[in-house]
Amino acid sequence: MPVILGQNQYGKAENRVVRIVRDGGTHHIKDLSVSVALGGDMAETHHSGSNATVLPTDTTKNTVFAFAKEYGIASAEQFGIRLARHFVTSQRAVHRARIRIEEYAWERVARSRTRSGSCSRTCSGHPGPDGVQHSFVRAGRETRLAQISYDGESWEVISGLTELTLLNTTDSEFRGYARDRYTTLEEAYDRILATDVTARWRYGWTSDQHPAPDWETSYAEARGHILETFAGTYSRSLQQTLYRMGSRVIEERGEIDEIRFSLPNKHHFLVDLEPFGLTNDNEVYFAADRPYGLIEATVLRDGADAAIPVDMTNL
Amino acid sequence: MPVILGQNQYGKAENRVVRIVRDGGTHHIKDLSVSVALGGDMAETHHSGSNATVLPTDTTKNTVFAFAKEYGIASAEQFGIRLARHFVTSQRAVHRARIRIEEYAWERVARSRTRSGSCSRTCSGHPGPDGVQHSFVRAGRETRLAQISYDGESWEVISGLTELTLLNTTDSEFRGYARDRYTTLEEAYDRILATDVTARWRYGWTSDQHPAPDWETSYAEARGHILETFAGTYSRSLQQTLYRMGSRVIEERGEIDEIRFSLPNKHHFLVDLEPFGLTNDNEVYFAADRPYGLIEATVLRDGADAAIPVDMTNL
Amino acid sequence: MPVILGQNQYGKAENRVVRIVRDGGTHHIKDLSVSVALGGDMAETHHSGSNATVLPTDTTKNTVFAFAKEYGIASAEQFGIRLARHFVTSQRAVHRARIRIEEYAWERVARSRTRSGSCSRTCSGHPGPDGVQHSFVRAGRETRLAQISYDGESWEVISGLTELTLLNTTDSEFRGYARDRYTTLEEAYDRILATDVTARWRYGWTSDQHPAPDWETSYAEARGHILETFAGTYSRSLQQTLYRMGSRVIEERGEIDEIRFSLPNKHHFLVDLEPFGLTNDNEVYFAADRPYGLIEATVLRDGADAAIPVDMTNL
Amino acid sequence: MPVILGQNQYGKAENRVVRIVRDGGTHHIKDLSVSVALGGDMAETHHSGSNATVLPTDTTKNTVFAFAKEYGIASAEQFGIRLARHFVTSQRAVHRARIRIEEYAWERVARSRTRSGSCSRTCSGHPGPDGVQHSFVRAGRETRLAQISYDGESWEVISGLTELTLLNTTDSEFRGYARDRYTTLEEAYDRILATDVTARWRYGWTSDQHPAPDWETSYAEARGHILETFAGTYSRSLQQTLYRMGSRVIEERGEIDEIRFSLPNKHHFLVDLEPFGLTNDNEVYFAADRPYGLIEATVLRDGADAAIPVDMTNL
Repeated sequence: MPVILGQNQYGKAENRVVRIVRDGGTHHIKDLSVSVALGGDMAETHHSGSNATVLPTDTTKNTVFAFAKEYGIASAEQFGIRLARHFVTSQRAVHRARIRIEEYAWERVARSRTRSGSCSRTCSGHPGPDGVQHSFVRAGRETRLAQISYDGESWEVISGLTELTLLNTTDSEFRGYARDRYTTLEEAYDRILATDVTARWRYGWTSDQHPAPDWETSYAEARGHILETFAGTYSRSLQQTLYRMGSRVIEERGEIDEIRFSLPNKHHFLVDLEPFGLTNDNEVYFAADRPYGLIEATVLRDGADAAIPVDMTNL
Repeated sequence: MPVILGQNQYGKAENRVVRIVRDGGTHHIKDLSVSVALGGDMAETHHSGSNATVLPTDTTKNTVFAFAKEYGIASAEQFGIRLARHFVTSQRAVHRARIRIEEYAWERVARSRTRSGSCSRTCSGHPGPDGVQHSFVRAGRETRLAQISYDGESWEVISGLTELTLLNTTDSEFRGYARDRYTTLEEAYDRILATDVTARWRYGWTSDQHPAPDWETSYAEARGHILETFAGTYSRSLQQTLYRMGSRVIEERGEIDEIRFSLPNKHHFLVDLEPFGLTNDNEVYFAADRPYGLIEATVLRDGADAAIPVDMTNL
Repeated sequence: MPVILGQNQYGKAENRVVRIVRDGGTHHIKDLSVSVALGGDMAETHHSGSNATVLPTDTTKNTVFAFAKEYGIASAEQFGIRLARHFVTSQRAVHRARIRIEEYAWERVARSRTRSGSCSRTCSGHPGPDGVQHSFVRAGRETRLAQISYDGESWEVISGLTELTLLNTTDSEFRGYARDRYTTLEEAYDRILATDVTARWRYGWTSDQHPAPDWETSYAEARGHILETFAGTYSRSLQQTLYRMGSRVIEERGEIDEIRFSLPNKHHFLVDLEPFGLTNDNEVYFAADRPYGLIEATVLRDGADAAIPVDMTNL
Repeated sequence: MPVILGQNQYGKAENRVVRIVRDGGTHHIKDLSVSVALGGDMAETHHSGSNATVLPTDTTKNTVFAFAKEYGIASAEQFGIRLARHFVTSQRAVHRARIRIEEYAWERVARSRTRSGSCSRTCSGHPGPDGVQHSFVRAGRETRLAQISYDGESWEVISGLTELTLLNTTDSEFRGYARDRYTTLEEAYDRILATDVTARWRYGWTSDQHPAPDWETSYAEARGHILETFAGTYSRSLQQTLYRMGSRVIEERGEIDEIRFSLPNKHHFLVDLEPFGLTNDNEVYFAADRPYGLIEATVLRDGADAAIPVDMTNL
């Protein structure tokens, strides 16, 4: 037969599981969307439609919810590891499992009134003495990401975040660039730099023989380094900012070997107010939607092999 | 002619204006999407295509950006009032203006490291002594809304918010309801209550003869009352929670005469784990997308006339 | 008590029901999203949380699916009428029902090969002699809309469509408009005119005493008049095009008393190619996203009262 | 330095270019979103912020629009090839170019009335003798995709489509599958099979030495084979349907060496109507949103190397 089957995988995508832990009156919440993809000895269902080796996607869904009960969700990564191990070790035909997780953040609603205007009167995260411990407000716009892959022998854990929107009102320029006959751009000496950070970082941990990282701390620290570096960098190009964010994470977090960013350059165009007799001293901008610059790169620990796929978005 | 022209309006929608105020090294940001709708003596362009009374929508866009420079943006409401007044008083053919504004919140990025885990290491809003004053992160998922209408004589200001996602893990029940032959629902004695709040409230202020409210304070206080009431109410129905949130705002904020909510009941179904030999003691939920309950109501100060349109969403 | 309850309604939104009719080997499909909103004697659930008069939203969902079986779906309007009548007449506390429906179109997939390139080889809608009668492809980008309101005495049926994207490459101009100090727009003598039509039309039929319109024919005819008028009008303003589309529908369809349009002016800007030594003779355009003009108006049969809400969108 | 730069690319994404060709009164339209990604000798801008080798993304945008004028758009693939070649051959620092294109389809609006109800009165694509030749309606829900990669020596062209929504009302079953303790699914002997096809296929053509395929014909034929195979297959699993669609394309189109599908299994659950005393004889379905099955696989010509990335979506 001149046609052959290549890479294939299947499973249930976007299982929205909410797990509550009730510690007396204080409740904790984990809110995930879990996608399961399994591969292995699955040629027959493609060729003849026989499903003898196919664990139904419905079963993979059930497993996500059952495991949330049986084992709890300490972190997205730990939960994904447990699921991946289960599928690979319990089904002979399943040789590979990849679990992708989106995690949505919640903050507590404080009942006590805090009069400081800084957090719109009802501060999140700081419940007072009479604070309610079972009320939450969805926090932030970003989504935490985790992807766990397992082939029965070694692990690959890629964590990250998306839709973290950052903006600097100054300390950004763009000049000294190459030119050709289609170049009309004027140099910018003081521009707004804005982006929606999508980042994925890969951990060096691959074997059950070694202790896994503390996933929650690692996430918080990596995220913090990205924010601080974005804020603290005088940017001559978004590429430079990207590289500094990446190298800071690699340098500061020994457990992370590789990080890749996809950074749209969300253009804020200075509006020409001259026709109205006004000057625009970097005060009024038009925030454009499309097109936008798109800057993508991987930053690696020297000696590490790149494994994060190049294309994390479709553009 | 058997056909007549009814209500009509036109303008430029979704002008995305970002206004920076530079107070030395400390920068401030206002980020709005402004939609202009004008009405008045516009029959001729509908009938013959003559545009003699039609100020181009492009001009209304220019005005938004020019006003951001000339007058700044103290608040969405104040900015909308200025725009509405301008169009109605400067164009003889324009008799009505309605400005709709979405405002997106930003928080400062702190450079100094704060080691408390509570805010993912880099806390927003509390820059340390070496804090960067020009770096921002998009905050929250909700959008602030404002709508200003003016007919040359009186004002109508409706403010609000949308996509404020709230969740209580307990203190919610639903029972004692009406039944018919299509009723299969079982009573819930302890359920998750989750919603995306869309609220719009109308101010009593209508005349330049009286001082306008402090829009920023009023917004923060109304939002805070909504959060606190949601968190503090033992809910027998989402309608009851809605009414308490509304009456609290009306009672506490004398400047607000009317408030309307549109509250999806975002179902979190308890997963049946019995087939797997597990009990689900209010721990594991499936967060469903569709369908969802939708609860909508207006709460009014006694004596006030309802003016907020009934349908704020399309469903 | 200084606070009162105003208009309120509740129900289950976005019930996605797919109804198959099997006529031998030839299958027919109806694909709807049905939203139910009920009102009436519901004060108590708002005030005390007592649900004694509240038919659960879950029951309204069940009713949608049960009625799809019991009565079939001849048209969105007929199905909505049946549902609205049921809720108002069977529940003493329900005094008003409003059913909103989105309908998604499907076309048949033809198995036989048609070699004419005009429809991408596999033509929809024209199955050959060996055509498969149970395979469908989602057709078109537009969504059909219907809203049925009933208070136990009289009916209001508003039908329509949304996201019908139209474009004329010529026969559109915009000039002779009003100017002020913020006007910079240059007159356009030959521009692209593009829009996403949202239209809602109200039927004169209100009473069971009279025969209802043929909803399917009426929809097809109204849609056709809109397309033909858009295509056939030399446009001096989008308002003029709107009015012609509306008056054509009112004139041609005696069963329709009122129609309202919301028409974004989807700007296609002629790209300035002069810096590259090229002329742009109305050949290359940049299709912008935001901002956009937004033109809205109602067209009425003389003597009819306007009843379609002014704001069909949020902008 | 322990940190190194890995794969990197940059450019302008989502350039929305509309190209009109005016053949007398008959106009033709091409509507594309073009994303440019360039790579090569770009380390310096990452390390020091020097942009000496960086052609601005703004210039890549200008080039897209200028080329639309200079060379026209015969097909998305041909346009992308021209752009990729230009960047790689004209900028010494650019060693790789990847052009991604989405194409949106338009059909002509017919002015003449066609009374057959089959196409909602105003048929697309078949203008009558007095047909307007400059009016268009956006057609279909699917988007055509093309990706062209060039490194100065060899070409890789991957075409495809996304959001092609298909549904069979019968001839689908799912049974005989593997079971474990989490399996609760009941076997289905006659179910609805629905999916949104995302497909990408890679052409064997890689060298300017050989003539390129006829891109328009190849697209239409591949799409047609996919539709016909979906319609004509009695499906025992979605994997089987996928494989048949893929092998049909490989067998029938010699110019295509590899095809990959990502097929969500859009569940249509038979509604349980028994509580209402009704039977549901495969008539009434609930169309669920999430979770959904996700089936992905590559089908290859024997001897070809797989090159289409495994993950075309983020789940």
